[in-house]
Amino acid sequence: MDKLILYRELIQRLLTARAKLRYGSDPIESQTIFDTTKDHYQLVHVGWKDSSTRIYGCVLHLDIKDGKIWVQHDGTEDA
Amino acid sequence: MDKLILYRELIQRLLTARAKLRYGSDPIESQTIFDTTKDHYQLVHVGWKDSSTRIYGCVLHLDIKDGKIWVQHDGTEDA
Repeated sequence: MDKLILYRELIQRLLTARAKLRYGSDPIESQTIFDTTKDHYQLVHVGWKDSSTRIYGCVLHLDIKDGKIWVQHDGTEDA
Repeated sequence: MDKLILYRELIQRLLTARAKLRYGSDPIESQTIFDTTKDHYQLVHVGWKDSSTRIYGCVLHLDIKDGKIWVQHDGTEDA
């Protein structure tokens, strides 16, 4: 399989799997944002906590650039 | 024109125009991330300032949900 196609598939699978971890009774939405044209891939948390506190944050942002995976932002170690 | 198609086009045009404002000698990259399948649209600033300070931030995040435009994050008033 072409390396680029493999990277695209692996990144999307990883972020989708991670987004699913959060679901359940949690009111915070885990959004996967995939721009397959420009090769930008994100996982973002969006929502309201206790109906009053706004939650917004990028958890992971990966790009594919020049055949390599770039970790543009890694918010997974903040917690 | 169908409202949804119009919204998609307007949002992408807006974010693309705004991304271009930043270019020039600025080393910070303005990325537009368009997920037209799930209707998530973002403008993100990514880069290094003075080769040592990491810059990462979502400037605008718009979604189309139930036929309406949702402003999920507006970082344009921070500056």
